[in-house]
Amino acid sequence: MTDQPGVVITGVSGRMGQMLVQQVQASAHLKLVGAIEREGHAWVGQDLGTAMGGAAIGVTVSDDPLEAFARAQAVIDFTAPAATVAFAELAAQARAVHVIGTTGLSDDDLTKIKAAARHAVIVRAGNMSLGVNLLTVLTRQVAAALDADYDIEVVEAHHNRKVDSPSGTALMLGEAAAEGRGVHLAEVSDRGRDGITGARKRGDIGFTAIRGGDIIGEHDVIFAGQGERIVLRHIASDRALFARGALKAALWGQDKGPGEYDMIDVLGLKRD
Amino acid sequence: MTDQPGVVITGVSGRMGQMLVQQVQASAHLKLVGAIEREGHAWVGQDLGTAMGGAAIGVTVSDDPLEAFARAQAVIDFTAPAATVAFAELAAQARAVHVIGTTGLSDDDLTKIKAAARHAVIVRAGNMSLGVNLLTVLTRQVAAALDADYDIEVVEAHHNRKVDSPSGTALMLGEAAAEGRGVHLAEVSDRGRDGITGARKRGDIGFTAIRGGDIIGEHDVIFAGQGERIVLRHIASDRALFARGALKAALWGQDKGPGEYDMIDVLGLKRD
Amino acid sequence: MTDQPGVVITGVSGRMGQMLVQQVQASAHLKLVGAIEREGHAWVGQDLGTAMGGAAIGVTVSDDPLEAFARAQAVIDFTAPAATVAFAELAAQARAVHVIGTTGLSDDDLTKIKAAARHAVIVRAGNMSLGVNLLTVLTRQVAAALDADYDIEVVEAHHNRKVDSPSGTALMLGEAAAEGRGVHLAEVSDRGRDGITGARKRGDIGFTAIRGGDIIGEHDVIFAGQGERIVLRHIASDRALFARGALKAALWGQDKGPGEYDMIDVLGLKRD
Amino acid sequence: MTDQPGVVITGVSGRMGQMLVQQVQASAHLKLVGAIEREGHAWVGQDLGTAMGGAAIGVTVSDDPLEAFARAQAVIDFTAPAATVAFAELAAQARAVHVIGTTGLSDDDLTKIKAAARHAVIVRAGNMSLGVNLLTVLTRQVAAALDADYDIEVVEAHHNRKVDSPSGTALMLGEAAAEGRGVHLAEVSDRGRDGITGARKRGDIGFTAIRGGDIIGEHDVIFAGQGERIVLRHIASDRALFARGALKAALWGQDKGPGEYDMIDVLGLKRD
Repeated sequence: MTDQPGVVITGVSGRMGQMLVQQVQASAHLKLVGAIEREGHAWVGQDLGTAMGGAAIGVTVSDDPLEAFARAQAVIDFTAPAATVAFAELAAQARAVHVIGTTGLSDDDLTKIKAAARHAVIVRAGNMSLGVNLLTVLTRQVAAALDADYDIEVVEAHHNRKVDSPSGTALMLGEAAAEGRGVHLAEVSDRGRDGITGARKRGDIGFTAIRGGDIIGEHDVIFAGQGERIVLRHIASDRALFARGALKAALWGQDKGPGEYDMIDVLGLKRD
Repeated sequence: MTDQPGVVITGVSGRMGQMLVQQVQASAHLKLVGAIEREGHAWVGQDLGTAMGGAAIGVTVSDDPLEAFARAQAVIDFTAPAATVAFAELAAQARAVHVIGTTGLSDDDLTKIKAAARHAVIVRAGNMSLGVNLLTVLTRQVAAALDADYDIEVVEAHHNRKVDSPSGTALMLGEAAAEGRGVHLAEVSDRGRDGITGARKRGDIGFTAIRGGDIIGEHDVIFAGQGERIVLRHIASDRALFARGALKAALWGQDKGPGEYDMIDVLGLKRD
Repeated sequence: MTDQPGVVITGVSGRMGQMLVQQVQASAHLKLVGAIEREGHAWVGQDLGTAMGGAAIGVTVSDDPLEAFARAQAVIDFTAPAATVAFAELAAQARAVHVIGTTGLSDDDLTKIKAAARHAVIVRAGNMSLGVNLLTVLTRQVAAALDADYDIEVVEAHHNRKVDSPSGTALMLGEAAAEGRGVHLAEVSDRGRDGITGARKRGDIGFTAIRGGDIIGEHDVIFAGQGERIVLRHIASDRALFARGALKAALWGQDKGPGEYDMIDVLGLKRD
Repeated sequence: MTDQPGVVITGVSGRMGQMLVQQVQASAHLKLVGAIEREGHAWVGQDLGTAMGGAAIGVTVSDDPLEAFARAQAVIDFTAPAATVAFAELAAQARAVHVIGTTGLSDDDLTKIKAAARHAVIVRAGNMSLGVNLLTVLTRQVAAALDADYDIEVVEAHHNRKVDSPSGTALMLGEAAAEGRGVHLAEVSDRGRDGITGARKRGDIGFTAIRGGDIIGEHDVIFAGQGERIVLRHIASDRALFARGALKAALWGQDKGPGEYDMIDVLGLKRD
């Protein structure tokens, strides 16, 4: 299939980079045409397959993104803010779809990415899972349909190495719930419930974080009313999920006009 | 509050009838103005409160719906098909909103109800729970957003006295999923899984029924893909829920034009 | 059935008192022979059924426990510490089984109850549900069988009017887990997780509290390891559950020798 | 660490075989000393690491179990009945602990394995997960503690490629529940519930099977009574779980006397 869009993966030696490589290699719709690591990294100049501890695959790890992007239709990038901002410019020059899973971007970074998106397709999301993005849309919608007689609680569970609570995804879901209700999350957020707290305040959005074992990520948005509960639940059972979402975004972006998109666009979901 | 709409409850001696009476009595938005039982029933002519084993409440049980409906702005009716068809005509004459929770209506019954709805507001639903109706809308939407890589399973749990499987609500949710996917439920329905069944067929919608104890009603719609699951869950924890939905419908219908509505309308939800 | 043990309910005008009355009235194994309220209460001297808003039942509410207990084989008591201590002495004099669901007893109160238990059967428990008591036993046992590679989390959900977190039952389950592991709960308890907390500490027992709607009470004890989770879950769906546990205790105590018992004894469960 | 027991893995080219190799390689307590495949297999004579597509590890795949077992303290074997019976004899001669995860063994096979266990330690289990085995013990115990007022339902969920329902583990849990109640599972088993089935029969043990996506394996044993439910749940989140259980068994068996054991023994759990 000569018409499979060619993909470059950045940060290939990292855990997410290697997972992306495996997913692209396994994909019938995309082909791997380049692999980027930072200058001076031990993998640069080696065959990627060999560097990953397996058989050679005919793709050499490079520290020259410009050359690699020029041969590609898409760049998938889960690296760090500074690198991602630089990649956004180069990808835009190459007219390659830039899929960004990098987190921790500053307002300044976001401005630069927006500028790059004037010339090329950028898809950016903090969580590339189709399901989580879908849950966000549903949460906003249910929060809008039900009044504050329904108490909203966001419950999440993650592995025991996670250092922050609640998870970024839980907060994203809480934001969606607040938007649906037309309130500011900061004003209704109830976290770290413990001790004699008094009765639950009407309109609050509560967060609780369960930590244990190797749980990849589970999120419940509970709407608890009188006599009934609605629960919107997402369970991630394989980290490859996030890589697959990125591949889907890379493919989806191939025939789109310049602009900055997110996974809600990729899913084709309406926002309200 | 002289402007609370007046409500008549039909079939007041039944379990659902009595629950409706209690809910209307407890409501700040509706007032009870009549109570109907069939001709010859022991309660006819008695004070309703006394008949229910408590204190008198000043409403006498009657077997004359025409007279009662004429004094009412709404009729709430969870009885039987023949009675409901007759009540629909009488309520339409009285221009009272007719809320119908009766099940088992034939096509012929539905035609007669539709005729009555030309002159008055009728709200009819097999399940008056706001949450279940909301779940139906969400199910259709998620089924439309995700392709058949996501296996759909409808799992329900009810008390040990329930005689049919799966529940009517589970089938309603399955219908919604099939609609979302643009298929006919009958062609993809997978029920009673047992023994050597072979691998799950792509596109099937599976149903499973758990029975035990006094579970009022729990429904899960599971969308299980590679690496993730989305679950839409409804838990009923109080049968009064269904009565409360009926009251909400009675109130909602007060300023609507003639027509037949359902709980999706009452909830103000868009259908797709 | 003339040999049904006779029961006196204390604090009959309260929510729990009334529920106990209904359960005894509905029981085929016990009969109601007395109802106690404090001196000066409006119900004293009235027929209990009438006072509860229904038909007369032939039991007069009294403020004289001594006289009432003398006619009874069991006293069921969900009142307040001072009253319960006094009732314990009177029940012991009457050789009636004293079932105590009162909470908040001080060490001094417990000493007095222990003294009364030298002459009569006392069954005392903070939660009379058979299931919760069973869960306590299982929790201790699983915690003993698994090492600290399995992270223990106690997750509970209650209605939005509950003022304290975590619930007393959650703490009881946490105590059982700590006992199973041979550690002190105070030293490993992790509550109110929020913000940048760092990775979960090995050996900790975490607590989280969900609040919303009218949830009666749900408790999960999670043992999360590498590649697997075990969850012990209890769901209360009817407050009458606690009343039924008390009745079971009253019946169970009829042929026992003097002493202080709990629901683990009533269930006939081994402690390790 | 020169005193790590040496392990031979049989059937190394299979999915489970490769997972066992990875687990032993990653273990700080066991070391890999041999790898067996059947005569004529392409891997025989190759370095195992190379054959698995990675770097060489210094262990050559062999088709001579006798020679390999003689150098080992344990043999881990998830192969097929005929091979397993032969390996049991050879492992017993070598006085190596034989851990058997092979399923589908006939009565005749079991007799031969029992014979081998007169001279050596054999640990055999259909499911090597610690958690599932623990759940079996708990299920038996809870079923014995609660009477038939509590309806028992076993609910399991697996991936969409599974061809049989209910799962072998679900049946194992159902057997444990039946034993706890002192009944025969065959007489109370209720499977494939669908249509107008009538009310649930008291004392029945129900089974339901959910199929979808890539669910590795989830099992719930529900005890549903009036007003409460107890649920014993196991969630497998990583197939390596079963391999790790086998390693634990291999280690546990090192200082035991000859005999046939199972995972309940390895866990150190009492059977009732």
